[in-house]
Amino acid sequence: MKKLFIPFLFLLGIIGLTSVSLKKFEEGMFPLSEIKHADLSKAGLKIAATELYNPNGISITDAIVRVGGCTGSFLSNEGLIVTNHHCAFSFVQAISNVKNDYIKNGFLAGNKEQEVPAQGLVCKITASYRDVSLEVLEGTKNLIGIERLSKIATNIKAITQKENAANKDLQCEISEMFTGKTYVLFRYKLLKDVRLVYVPPVSIGAYGGELDNWVWPRHSGDFAFLRAYVAPDGTAADFNKNNVPYKPVKFLEVNKNGVDENDFVFILGYPGRTYRHQPAGFYAYHEKYFLSYISTLYNWQIGYMEQLGKSNDELRIKYAARIKSLANTAKNFEGKLQGFKRVGLSATKQNEEKELQQFIATQPDLMEKYGQVIPQINTHYNTIMKNAMRNMWFDQVFNMSPWIFASATLAGYQQNYATLKTAAERKSFIETEQAQIKKAMAKPLAMIDKNTEIDFTAKMLFDASQYDATNEIAAVKNLLGNKKTLQEITNLVKLMYQKSKLNNADLIKQMLENDLQKLLTTKDVMIDFSKQLYAEMKVYDKEDMERDGALSKLMAQLIEVKQTWQQRNFIPDANGTLRFTYGFVKGYSPNDGLYAKPFTTLKGVIEKSDTMEFQLLDIIKQLYAKKDIADFAHPALGDLPVNLLYNLDTTGGNSGSPVMNKKGQLIAINFDRAFTATINDYAWNEAYSRSVGVDVRYMLWVLQKVAGANHVVNELTFSQ
Amino acid sequence: MKKLFIPFLFLLGIIGLTSVSLKKFEEGMFPLSEIKHADLSKAGLKIAATELYNPNGISITDAIVRVGGCTGSFLSNEGLIVTNHHCAFSFVQAISNVKNDYIKNGFLAGNKEQEVPAQGLVCKITASYRDVSLEVLEGTKNLIGIERLSKIATNIKAITQKENAANKDLQCEISEMFTGKTYVLFRYKLLKDVRLVYVPPVSIGAYGGELDNWVWPRHSGDFAFLRAYVAPDGTAADFNKNNVPYKPVKFLEVNKNGVDENDFVFILGYPGRTYRHQPAGFYAYHEKYFLSYISTLYNWQIGYMEQLGKSNDELRIKYAARIKSLANTAKNFEGKLQGFKRVGLSATKQNEEKELQQFIATQPDLMEKYGQVIPQINTHYNTIMKNAMRNMWFDQVFNMSPWIFASATLAGYQQNYATLKTAAERKSFIETEQAQIKKAMAKPLAMIDKNTEIDFTAKMLFDASQYDATNEIAAVKNLLGNKKTLQEITNLVKLMYQKSKLNNADLIKQMLENDLQKLLTTKDVMIDFSKQLYAEMKVYDKEDMERDGALSKLMAQLIEVKQTWQQRNFIPDANGTLRFTYGFVKGYSPNDGLYAKPFTTLKGVIEKSDTMEFQLLDIIKQLYAKKDIADFAHPALGDLPVNLLYNLDTTGGNSGSPVMNKKGQLIAINFDRAFTATINDYAWNEAYSRSVGVDVRYMLWVLQKVAGANHVVNELTFSQ
Repeated sequence: MKKLFIPFLFLLGIIGLTSVSLKKFEEGMFPLSEIKHADLSKAGLKIAATELYNPNGISITDAIVRVGGCTGSFLSNEGLIVTNHHCAFSFVQAISNVKNDYIKNGFLAGNKEQEVPAQGLVCKITASYRDVSLEVLEGTKNLIGIERLSKIATNIKAITQKENAANKDLQCEISEMFTGKTYVLFRYKLLKDVRLVYVPPVSIGAYGGELDNWVWPRHSGDFAFLRAYVAPDGTAADFNKNNVPYKPVKFLEVNKNGVDENDFVFILGYPGRTYRHQPAGFYAYHEKYFLSYISTLYNWQIGYMEQLGKSNDELRIKYAARIKSLANTAKNFEGKLQGFKRVGLSATKQNEEKELQQFIATQPDLMEKYGQVIPQINTHYNTIMKNAMRNMWFDQVFNMSPWIFASATLAGYQQNYATLKTAAERKSFIETEQAQIKKAMAKPLAMIDKNTEIDFTAKMLFDASQYDATNEIAAVKNLLGNKKTLQEITNLVKLMYQKSKLNNADLIKQMLENDLQKLLTTKDVMIDFSKQLYAEMKVYDKEDMERDGALSKLMAQLIEVKQTWQQRNFIPDANGTLRFTYGFVKGYSPNDGLYAKPFTTLKGVIEKSDTMEFQLLDIIKQLYAKKDIADFAHPALGDLPVNLLYNLDTTGGNSGSPVMNKKGQLIAINFDRAFTATINDYAWNEAYSRSVGVDVRYMLWVLQKVAGANHVVNELTFSQ
Repeated sequence: MKKLFIPFLFLLGIIGLTSVSLKKFEEGMFPLSEIKHADLSKAGLKIAATELYNPNGISITDAIVRVGGCTGSFLSNEGLIVTNHHCAFSFVQAISNVKNDYIKNGFLAGNKEQEVPAQGLVCKITASYRDVSLEVLEGTKNLIGIERLSKIATNIKAITQKENAANKDLQCEISEMFTGKTYVLFRYKLLKDVRLVYVPPVSIGAYGGELDNWVWPRHSGDFAFLRAYVAPDGTAADFNKNNVPYKPVKFLEVNKNGVDENDFVFILGYPGRTYRHQPAGFYAYHEKYFLSYISTLYNWQIGYMEQLGKSNDELRIKYAARIKSLANTAKNFEGKLQGFKRVGLSATKQNEEKELQQFIATQPDLMEKYGQVIPQINTHYNTIMKNAMRNMWFDQVFNMSPWIFASATLAGYQQNYATLKTAAERKSFIETEQAQIKKAMAKPLAMIDKNTEIDFTAKMLFDASQYDATNEIAAVKNLLGNKKTLQEITNLVKLMYQKSKLNNADLIKQMLENDLQKLLTTKDVMIDFSKQLYAEMKVYDKEDMERDGALSKLMAQLIEVKQTWQQRNFIPDANGTLRFTYGFVKGYSPNDGLYAKPFTTLKGVIEKSDTMEFQLLDIIKQLYAKKDIADFAHPALGDLPVNLLYNLDTTGGNSGSPVMNKKGQLIAINFDRAFTATINDYAWNEAYSRSVGVDVRYMLWVLQKVAGANHVVNELTFSQ
């Protein structure tokens, strides 16, 4: 590591220049239509823009595939797909058991016959697109609120149906690019028979587990190989032994020389959701209310469950997955909150909106058309913030308490059932809804622990009792009466628990199977409470939808006038459609006094290997001891590169995206962001936005040396 | 931070060269006698070696002062001393109360009259030294074991008494430089009237608390100012209003331009203890047994107390200090264990010893004289490791359980008392020992919580019950009988707790005050157990002392033959005497993928300020918002430097040491080591050994801008 002791002064010149002159290129998740507007050759791309995307021919874009909620890319003309370990994990989990523990040992098909279906996984390839904004917004000009939203939904449904009828082998979807303003229809080729080829052991694919999640330095081999199959005639087909490997029109070459710091790289993938074009009120709401409420509530739950687990192994194991999921979100949200503070995001957005309003005020025609847009949006956000606690509570209460979820669900069914007049109607209702009712009751029936249930419910009721008058929840107020302390409320919940039938799983099961009518008419203390809760929530839901409708139109106007003001087009927020992003391999300073180097190495994998979360395979230790890193050493590091950092603009959904070099060759698989880059969802930032990928050299080394998967390596095409 | 994005390849050349060519200079805590052997001008020192240390004149060494267990330096000709906040903390704590909370608000004397005595603090200045090895070892040639140790102790006592009689104003101490081999007599000038001048608020002086302890990046203002006073005639005197400020023969100039990365720096100070010259067995014992046993046991205690504290605020507060102390050690030991593993220390030492033995075997005269040294040492260490569990258990059991401590203490007194024949003897015993007995019982009387007491005792008994035959503790075995599980053992302890009088504080107090005879004869279930424990321990203690005696002689021979082998003299281990260490301001890579930059800044202080452990004064936030960092900006960082890293060889005791530049001017106050540098105690390592100092620019800024202590700043002398 001696190589990196840096003389401070010396670096100033070089680095200052580089980052200033290139900064403007790096933000943005470009839709396909916008790629041509980026000056990519100046940034460092050495191939023509048409090699990236070419609506009239073959391009790299054709090698990109949506893998469930993730991204992947084709690496051979026999449908071989590379994506992330965490994108393939649930499919490996589904075929694992005590005898064949593929999670622990990894899964490797020795040949095509041994490949196993990834049950339920559907892949998509973007075939083409067209702007359908005019058609989607047809007839909405004079509509407001819910009515406008409904009309848009109706138009979308009609267009989609028509398109799907005309394109039998494609699936058509319409995506909203700018809220209430721009809509694009995408046609996707579906691949419904996808099989597992190689998924590394979890100790490689998720090395470091929760501890390293959202963290740099990272040392994870988060990659996996799948293969797509189609019917012999090339059309999409469900799993069938007679299916044949899909021949993509394009697959990526792999460059095993990798990249160096400051090299140009780009990604094509399917980022899920960002919030770059929201009004200032949105950011204020997220910073002040949403992020902190959720992370605090989740951390409270995690703390409760961890404490329980300390003295109860059974509960510790049962709660592990839930803790993991909550921790993932809580850590992400804490990163976002840190980012909000560091970059002063809310204030920046507020100032920007003030300037925009001043600009509008200078021109009478703009003033007439847009003068009220920002004030009206602000009014809506003031209401959102005024009622934030109540609405967030309603969003969380059913997750917190399966018991409340169960009672509210039953309350709904009971109310509908009660309106039926005749015995025949009731019989028909039961026949029709039976499956749905059973499904809805599955979660509450899987309740894990009575005390957790009681304490979580009491916590939510206590929280609600603390809210101010504008956030008062009448049903809770009525229930609690003059009970104030958490202890009093917990006692009340205990009493309700004893009285309620919903906690008797046997009884519920018996009623579900044999006497659904009884379940739909039974009197229960919790169902009574939930009926009130449900009725109240419906009122607020209606208000929300009206507001969403109004905001949809206002947001469209806001973008319009912002474009007039800034004299430029904007890149739409991520929405699960195919995007291009580019930038450079780059380290960064996550905190004052620290510099995150852009590469980690096998040495670091070994260094981490002495703790709980880092169970390392013996073979990796042995290979390291023998210095057997084949010919995959990074020249400057003198070691096998494992993960790398780059300042590209990614978010969830970009998992598994190929990271390509200036020639469009695969050099890494994207799989995560650094902690400071969780703010990406709201704003890309040169200082903090870094994404993390698996270096192809580590991937190839694992395939060759650890998995002995030479047949997979041999299927790849290496660039010269 | 953009300035630090580093192009990898570029740096290789420069840095590689620098660190290789200078590496040999940087290890070592040189005694004064060795400074002249270091090629300091080649390393970068711009003043003559005689300006560092000059036995015949005035030098920088005369400005260094031992401050209790820490180090300080004189900064004015009126006895002004700078040291660490954590070195002055207990004295500020002693004068703080609810009304005058100097801990929270800081302490500042507006003038000399307002300075407050640091009660009990004695400072020392090294006046001179001489080698007394021959005198200390006189008459020991044919002695072995305990007898040799006793003779050495007797000689040391005699020499010291004679010296002290001859030097009335000096205190003489003899320090062992190489075990059983080299001894140096140091003469110290004492300063017994030391007063507080300025101690910053704890939120500056210990910013980050336990969380940031042993951590980089660090943002702590860990400095404090004291003043030494002497009698009007210049002799040492206890506090007296008529005392006058001490005029040191030398004080340091302050350089407010600070230093940059790669600059030469050095430290003079009083490092406490290192273990660089131990036999290979010593390192194996520490890695395999000592460090992991202690850190595991301490973490167990911490976990227990933290869990208790979650539901009990009173216990949470009462246990806070104990948790802090245990956590400090546990974290340090975990760092050491990581270091052992990373640098492969035990294996290196073992190989070195094998090579040495091979060298000895090549020369018959060496073989005759030293051939058995290493084998004999190994035999002793094999015994140490064989009985490690038992001996470590005995070392910890009295700390774990005040109850066992109390009963063992009383058991000792009771045994002595029982041997007395006459009433007169017994009366005399009580009169003589009364004060000691009361003192010994103070700790057990301050027991905090019954359940903790029971659980800690049960834990120790259970642990002992798990040891193998060679570590069996007979007293425990007899007590437990066939009780095996922790639950059974806990129940037994509960029963003993009920039966034992030692848990009745009122009864004990009453006996201590009014009926000591009863206490010295009372029958008690715990005293009975402790008598056996105590008797057993005495046997092991005797074995230990015999072994220490034998090892003392063997170690002297080991060093002798090692010097013959390596054809060079060694730098002795730190032993609380004045040492010189030098090196460079340097960042480093604490973990693969990370680079710790050598400076932190005020920006980082602000960034950390939103969490529990980082309570920041509003005035600092306001000054930062105004960018008011006076003229203290680091030119390359463009911000106020706060802490810095350097690769000097320091350990505990170096706290408060002045860090000086190539001209001997003060540029920082040393206060901690990085986590990876905890291994320093066993081996300095270029890759990991980094110490941490407060930049003088932050110190001056806090004095001027935060404390408004211009009169302190004005007393300093700034270099041009």
